[in-house]
Amino acid sequence: MLSIVILGAAAGGGVPQWNCGCANCRSARNGHPELKSTQASIAVSADQQNWFLINASPDLRQQLTGTPALHPRAGALRHSPVAGVILTNGEVDALAGLLSLREGAAFGLYAHRRVLDILDDNPIFNVLRADLVPRRAIDVGAAFEPTLPGGQVSGLVVEPFAVPGKIALYLEAADSNAEGDTIGLVIRDTARTRKLVFLAACAEVTPAIAARLEGADLVFFDGTLWRDDEMITAGLGQKTGQRMGHISMREAIPALAGLDIGRRVFLHINNSNPALRPDSPERREAAHAGWIVPADGMEITL
Amino acid sequence: MLSIVILGAAAGGGVPQWNCGCANCRSARNGHPELKSTQASIAVSADQQNWFLINASPDLRQQLTGTPALHPRAGALRHSPVAGVILTNGEVDALAGLLSLREGAAFGLYAHRRVLDILDDNPIFNVLRADLVPRRAIDVGAAFEPTLPGGQVSGLVVEPFAVPGKIALYLEAADSNAEGDTIGLVIRDTARTRKLVFLAACAEVTPAIAARLEGADLVFFDGTLWRDDEMITAGLGQKTGQRMGHISMREAIPALAGLDIGRRVFLHINNSNPALRPDSPERREAAHAGWIVPADGMEITL
Repeated sequence: MLSIVILGAAAGGGVPQWNCGCANCRSARNGHPELKSTQASIAVSADQQNWFLINASPDLRQQLTGTPALHPRAGALRHSPVAGVILTNGEVDALAGLLSLREGAAFGLYAHRRVLDILDDNPIFNVLRADLVPRRAIDVGAAFEPTLPGGQVSGLVVEPFAVPGKIALYLEAADSNAEGDTIGLVIRDTARTRKLVFLAACAEVTPAIAARLEGADLVFFDGTLWRDDEMITAGLGQKTGQRMGHISMREAIPALAGLDIGRRVFLHINNSNPALRPDSPERREAAHAGWIVPADGMEITL
Repeated sequence: MLSIVILGAAAGGGVPQWNCGCANCRSARNGHPELKSTQASIAVSADQQNWFLINASPDLRQQLTGTPALHPRAGALRHSPVAGVILTNGEVDALAGLLSLREGAAFGLYAHRRVLDILDDNPIFNVLRADLVPRRAIDVGAAFEPTLPGGQVSGLVVEPFAVPGKIALYLEAADSNAEGDTIGLVIRDTARTRKLVFLAACAEVTPAIAARLEGADLVFFDGTLWRDDEMITAGLGQKTGQRMGHISMREAIPALAGLDIGRRVFLHINNSNPALRPDSPERREAAHAGWIVPADGMEITL
């Protein structure tokens, strides 16, 4: 069995974004709190007691406070069900939440060497003491079993895979794209009866990507934008989705239509995306194609 | 006139803290949401339109979303009333929120050279583009007028002063305490009719500190702990308040009793502090001595 909680569904900045007056952000502030969404992260567990976070968003403290499954167990003075964190890229919206996991707790931190290098280059992340939070390099194609802080098995098997994407925005000037900047994850229970694929940033559905998704019980897929030029036409930015490393929903939906996938859930949804609104034609089109646009806190059991 | 909003009242970790099962954290999760509190930060304005944040806590996105005065003005596609951020120390709970102020907005960032050095040493803070977010060194004893992003006057005069304190916890191994690691701020309107003192971390009430507080209309003072050994006796840690650079409430209350101060508000209140609970003897003792233990969102006008 695999249990999943969607801690946050939104892209960087969240909904509402602090400095944004677009239609969705305005609505989220005024009269439509159901549009509010924190930045993308999920929690996964094979035993419903020990959980692994996929990415640590800047909203992590708020997300943990709002998720009973992730509260300390009754009677413990200090404890957390968070057994580990697996990072899939080095963007601020994927890793800033690590700064909210200080306070002397032990957990495992897993990321590609390219992303661990970012942490190593920023001494502020030393608030996570190396003796309590070991940093473990993971590599594409090399499946691993994340362990609990005491070394026990987690019941999970995770296989990272390469994804067409890009390096973190704030590093663009200093470095160029390389394998490992963005990874996807195939997550299974150790008996391999369930398959979850996490792919919250993806620039293109290549045959290799399609093969990874085939047969999954659940897929979390990049839902940043509805249209590739959506930020530009809304006056919110100068970049296309492709430039930011994100395929649009309207391209992804047909590209994945023929695959055998149990549940399809968009994640990392930008505040500019009209499919955020339950009453929009875009949401209806996504739903009609079998896609879920989730709310924070949604729970899924496989 | 000075307007103030308390964005968060809690010390590092907030209430509840993600991995803490102490009495206050348990209550905050179960049945007493009024105990919930985000990490310490205030917003100050001389015109109720342009606001300066004193410290940027990891909870900043949640705080901005929850504070109507800090929402973008109606009709603007991108805007924020946040005109600047002034940092008083380099702890994670004082500066991690800077990572939530990305997205291309212009504002001024003011801190002592010792704290700017921390930002410079961590390239992740380059998400704040240098051309939009100039970093300005401030020094003890040197009053300055923070400006709006366009260069206009803010109506505020700020004077940093030296405080008995300590270097950020995560830097203790690499560096030793020096002037500037922790500063206090005297904040006035430019006509100098109102005086606010911000002193959310202070190890000792020296005569120089008392002189700074004398005559203030409003003081925010270090309220981390009620007793110096509170963390130890609760089994939550090995350090005294003194070791962490914080005088306890029960020592601060008599030390400041004879001063001419309009309103006394504790800030940076740790989850271990019994004065958090409205029904506690400690809260009654603080209130009897004229001290406010505030809730997030409290507004004060001077």
